[in-house]
Amino acid sequence: MHKIADDLKTKTGWELIKTAYHASDAIGDGTRFLIGNGYLGYRGTFAENTKEDYVACVVTDTWDNADGKWEELVTVPNALWTTLSVDGTPFSVKTHHGAFEKTLDLKGALNHSSVSHTFNHGATVSVKESKFASYALKHVVAMRYEVATDQAVDIAITTGIDSDVWSMNGNHFAKSDYFIHEGDYGVNITTTTAKDTIIVLEKTVWPEDAKVDTKAPKRKAHLHITPDKPCVFEKFMIVVTSNDVTHPLDVAKDLYRKIYGFEALKKAHSAAWDALWTMHDIEIEGNLADQLGVRFNLYHALIATPVHKALPIGARGLSCQAYQGAAWWDGEIYNMPMYLFTNPLIAKNLLIFRHKTLDGARAKAKRLGYEGAFYPWVSGKRGEELCPDFFFKDVLTGRDIRNHFNVWQIHVSMDIAYAVMQYYHATQDHAFMEDYGIEMLLEIARFTASRVVWIPHRNRYEIHQVLGPDVYHENIDNNAFTNWMARYALKVAIDALETFSSETIKRVKKTIQLRDDEITLWHDIIDKLMIPSPNKAGVIEQFDHYFDLETVLPASKLKERLIDEGEYYGWPNGIAVYTQCIKQADVIQLMVLFRNQFTEATHQANIDYYEPRTLHFSSLSPSTNAIGAARANRMALSETLFRHSLNIDLLNTKKSVTGGTFIGGSHTAANGATWQMVMFGFLGLTMEGDGLVFHPRLPQSWTRVKTTMYFRDQTIIVTADKATLYLKRRAMSMAPISVSVLNRNYTLHDTLKISIEKS
Amino acid sequence: MHKIADDLKTKTGWELIKTAYHASDAIGDGTRFLIGNGYLGYRGTFAENTKEDYVACVVTDTWDNADGKWEELVTVPNALWTTLSVDGTPFSVKTHHGAFEKTLDLKGALNHSSVSHTFNHGATVSVKESKFASYALKHVVAMRYEVATDQAVDIAITTGIDSDVWSMNGNHFAKSDYFIHEGDYGVNITTTTAKDTIIVLEKTVWPEDAKVDTKAPKRKAHLHITPDKPCVFEKFMIVVTSNDVTHPLDVAKDLYRKIYGFEALKKAHSAAWDALWTMHDIEIEGNLADQLGVRFNLYHALIATPVHKALPIGARGLSCQAYQGAAWWDGEIYNMPMYLFTNPLIAKNLLIFRHKTLDGARAKAKRLGYEGAFYPWVSGKRGEELCPDFFFKDVLTGRDIRNHFNVWQIHVSMDIAYAVMQYYHATQDHAFMEDYGIEMLLEIARFTASRVVWIPHRNRYEIHQVLGPDVYHENIDNNAFTNWMARYALKVAIDALETFSSETIKRVKKTIQLRDDEITLWHDIIDKLMIPSPNKAGVIEQFDHYFDLETVLPASKLKERLIDEGEYYGWPNGIAVYTQCIKQADVIQLMVLFRNQFTEATHQANIDYYEPRTLHFSSLSPSTNAIGAARANRMALSETLFRHSLNIDLLNTKKSVTGGTFIGGSHTAANGATWQMVMFGFLGLTMEGDGLVFHPRLPQSWTRVKTTMYFRDQTIIVTADKATLYLKRRAMSMAPISVSVLNRNYTLHDTLKISIEKS
Repeated sequence: MHKIADDLKTKTGWELIKTAYHASDAIGDGTRFLIGNGYLGYRGTFAENTKEDYVACVVTDTWDNADGKWEELVTVPNALWTTLSVDGTPFSVKTHHGAFEKTLDLKGALNHSSVSHTFNHGATVSVKESKFASYALKHVVAMRYEVATDQAVDIAITTGIDSDVWSMNGNHFAKSDYFIHEGDYGVNITTTTAKDTIIVLEKTVWPEDAKVDTKAPKRKAHLHITPDKPCVFEKFMIVVTSNDVTHPLDVAKDLYRKIYGFEALKKAHSAAWDALWTMHDIEIEGNLADQLGVRFNLYHALIATPVHKALPIGARGLSCQAYQGAAWWDGEIYNMPMYLFTNPLIAKNLLIFRHKTLDGARAKAKRLGYEGAFYPWVSGKRGEELCPDFFFKDVLTGRDIRNHFNVWQIHVSMDIAYAVMQYYHATQDHAFMEDYGIEMLLEIARFTASRVVWIPHRNRYEIHQVLGPDVYHENIDNNAFTNWMARYALKVAIDALETFSSETIKRVKKTIQLRDDEITLWHDIIDKLMIPSPNKAGVIEQFDHYFDLETVLPASKLKERLIDEGEYYGWPNGIAVYTQCIKQADVIQLMVLFRNQFTEATHQANIDYYEPRTLHFSSLSPSTNAIGAARANRMALSETLFRHSLNIDLLNTKKSVTGGTFIGGSHTAANGATWQMVMFGFLGLTMEGDGLVFHPRLPQSWTRVKTTMYFRDQTIIVTADKATLYLKRRAMSMAPISVSVLNRNYTLHDTLKISIEKS
Repeated sequence: MHKIADDLKTKTGWELIKTAYHASDAIGDGTRFLIGNGYLGYRGTFAENTKEDYVACVVTDTWDNADGKWEELVTVPNALWTTLSVDGTPFSVKTHHGAFEKTLDLKGALNHSSVSHTFNHGATVSVKESKFASYALKHVVAMRYEVATDQAVDIAITTGIDSDVWSMNGNHFAKSDYFIHEGDYGVNITTTTAKDTIIVLEKTVWPEDAKVDTKAPKRKAHLHITPDKPCVFEKFMIVVTSNDVTHPLDVAKDLYRKIYGFEALKKAHSAAWDALWTMHDIEIEGNLADQLGVRFNLYHALIATPVHKALPIGARGLSCQAYQGAAWWDGEIYNMPMYLFTNPLIAKNLLIFRHKTLDGARAKAKRLGYEGAFYPWVSGKRGEELCPDFFFKDVLTGRDIRNHFNVWQIHVSMDIAYAVMQYYHATQDHAFMEDYGIEMLLEIARFTASRVVWIPHRNRYEIHQVLGPDVYHENIDNNAFTNWMARYALKVAIDALETFSSETIKRVKKTIQLRDDEITLWHDIIDKLMIPSPNKAGVIEQFDHYFDLETVLPASKLKERLIDEGEYYGWPNGIAVYTQCIKQADVIQLMVLFRNQFTEATHQANIDYYEPRTLHFSSLSPSTNAIGAARANRMALSETLFRHSLNIDLLNTKKSVTGGTFIGGSHTAANGATWQMVMFGFLGLTMEGDGLVFHPRLPQSWTRVKTTMYFRDQTIIVTADKATLYLKRRAMSMAPISVSVLNRNYTLHDTLKISIEKS
């Protein structure tokens, strides 16, 4: 057993084991042990838990606005709710946790718990729960509940559907009716503003000799158990909504019929996960903690990702309602790259969601006086802006703060253009470009051109009043990240116009009524947009006059100025605003996206400058700087930041509640960035022309890393140790791939074995 | 005796009489009874007072920075300091104010106080002080000090120079040495950072039989007085600095020699003030309170105005150090118009100060990345920006607030262009334009052109990130006031280029290296600058999206949201920021400056819209809305606002201290605007072409108003009653003046008598 933290262990790097129960871990463990399948997430709670314990089953595509302010995904009633009593005494993990173990089985995507208690009359009773969110039947969550004893006891199991759900922003159940189906119960819900139908149906498989009292929806069964005859009880929760199918009740009943039992369902689930891990696993030798951390994060990235439909990956996935389950730039920049190189269909899905929401982005641009597609900072399912004007509260005064994420954080549109091009580069999916991509690129370019201003006396375009990725500095001009991305977005739009068939271009131009004078303007902006370049020391200024701000080193010292722990550091008058302290990577974010366009010396100058100024208060930040540091050959720093990022959810290092608002749950950007830290960071992977570039620099303790990647319809197994990079192509009869390793060029036919030892 | 307030009276409208002593009035009375002559201001305190009583003598052009943060005028040692004891008992107004009267004689520009006390032994002793700041010898303040009794008593008078001055921001006396001159004392000061020399010299005229003890600089004289032989003691304070003359000590000694006595000096002073009132007085019949209020404000405007040198009028004049005695836009917009039409040399002086400080304005523009002349929000004597980045403190958190007056409040430059043109329009002073005006106009236009941005997709120029006159809304775009003023500034620069002789233009263009492509750009901006025009209801939006802000009516209700009385309402998160409540006139300010360019209906729509939204927390605001309301024929409102403005200093209606900072003193903008309210408001005076326009609408209670104005080298006596406007020209052999009254045209040769009765 390898110790990860005080009460966390792993055996093989495929499982997370917790060995002690602490009441205070309710939120963290609910997230850590989360199960899910991209359709729903079911928190890693116990069957007996209720909303006080942050039980939640969050379902994709169920956005509803119950309090008039916040649109969020709905938490549905818990059909796995089950309690136990032993000889009349309630058994609860909260008071009975003598021998405790809770496991997240990453390979099988199950969680287990096992807890036992010795009662006054001498009997030691144990309860084992196993749950999984079926990857094969995505509407089903399955539970096996076993009660064992060393002396004969009478037990009673109460089970039903707990409709008193934990919901962050109001009651989403405008209507909620129970119904009976083949002796089990279901609940038929109509949501508050969306008016969606949600069906939650339980299916119970009682032990043969259970005496079941069926008078109430919460049914009770009495059993006599002995040491050689434990009780095994199975329960299934079926969730279907009118967003999934036209007749959700019919589909739920059909699924009810199809479920034969826990083991059978588990087999199909395991097969699905075996396939997933074949695509996604990263094997690490030499550091079991890193191995576990990487798999733990990949697991959370995978369960947060909808694959059944073109839907976004929420900032907290399906682990809770925080951050509204909505689309943020995280999706394109933090989550998509992993899928791009493992399962590009998912990347495509994420981009198709952005195409589906183009009208919303167009409406936002128009409302604010711009043209083209200004994607929302927090996008609802129709592309509507979910980010409210007043986001935070000033804890010192109790007044609302007007943050400007929803109007000034324009880079989200350019990020999407970047993601479109990354997708196209990795897949050469012409059809996607013709059906979706080109239109998006042109509308984003159009927005970009409407957001720049021309400064006559400087003879250049500039971009004013933005927020870059670092949100602590609002209302800034010529943010290096944003200006670079803006020029990039214009360039790729022009490229698209010049690359694709004139017929396609003609059609898309007609669809969006693009005029030639707009294109002329784009060319002009590309030529004359102010692009901050490195100063003499090689450092790029984050925005105009950033260097004039107060230097506080290290940035962590800034907290000495806090009046209240819960203060927001940023706009309008937080302690970071007039300092160089930044919440998260900004210039480094830019350099990581365009890794090959900067020299190693420039990478070094910037990581050396910005890292000590970075508070890393965003879960997005450590991974970006980890990649930047690896690119700069600052390997010790890169490793530190890599583990910082890995541990965010694994060790639950972030606050769950701030200023009275729940912000817990899994950090899907950090989860998704884990793949990037290994592949972009330690293996130095980039795309260049039609080929791939590697620049391996493994962490000290790693003896070997192995993974599978996908590039232009081909699968490549990548293995590296300190001495060798080994590439093996699952070759179909396709053209070889050009590969550059440590700046030398090779051609990958079937295999390549390249020495990477330091000379 | 006409009662003005509880303890304030006037007899003839030429004097303000206070009839009761209240210790709490120290600050207010010090300001109210201020004497001054544009070179120095001496607060209306008692001879016995010290810094605890806010004694101050503030001297022009002595800016010094003692605390590293605030540059301010110096308060010099008080050479009039005098105390009295009667039969060994100290006599103090603080404890002995049995019969009290304090008078400000507006006609003679003197203050008097008279206070008496009956002692235990039965003697009633009275002290009378008279003081004036000589308008004839501007370096001299004179005092006559008389002690009378109804029984013989022994008195002792102690007098000297009190160097323990009230200074707001640090000690400005780096060095301070006493010297003796002809038995009197003087003090020779070197200031802290400016290293100026300041000489303060006393001249004492003792009563003949005084026994003077001269051992210490604070000398004591013993006298025996009887009912028929009071004590009369005279003292003179001489102030000369190295900013005035090269050898200030020699000049001070020369003045010492020239001063013969109080009465002689007073005669010259009175003659000077008689001449001043001939130019400036406004006679009102029918409302003695208004008459007093108008004269009181004109008096304060006059004593605040330097005439000896091209120096600005401080926002608090010479009444204290608040607002740094620096140049603000108030000078051009609130103070200058009165002088323009009464004594244009003073207007010219104010503008020459701006020309002298052009280099400072150029340096500010350059430092911030612009071109031309960006005048400081708070201008020091070399045009350096005195307004600090952090101006206010957030009283709720104790944190400094970064207000942006010094970087975003750009209209000050355009205001100066407006003032230049007003001056030129009123005087046709070609020489001024050739020597100063054209260069200023071109440099301001150049700055303006460098501050606009071109928005390609809207095919227009805009101006972003400014503050208009209403400072509660920072960081706004397309402020109606600023955009109008910007276009105006460009237009008048182009006009100047086209109007003046090609030789002059060639010379100025060469001096400032103006390129032809700049002029082409100015033309383009004039054509395509976004100018907010009235909406369907006739209202001009103050800035982009102002109408979307929350409406709170009346604006005064907003204060219910205060957490702390001392809170700043504006940036970054004050209670006005996200509402339509404004600190002061903004759109109305624009309409008042360009009164003839808007219809009466538009004036009405805007005053009706904005007045209830205006908090009038700036002393500049009521007068502007009073003029706007008169122009809109909202006469009841105009009268209310007129008196609101009149009473600011008269009734001391503003806070003297806020957030620990002294902001008391006279409000010179409101003082100066008094003339505008009568002339521009009630008489409806504007300039049009080469002539004058009148649109008289007198307040209800006024039966007659009479004043003298100056226009293009001619003096015109303007008299109006409800029925008639009577114009009388002190005709020299000059061309007649075209006059429009109530939209009908006339020609003024010698006199014009026009019926203005309502039909």
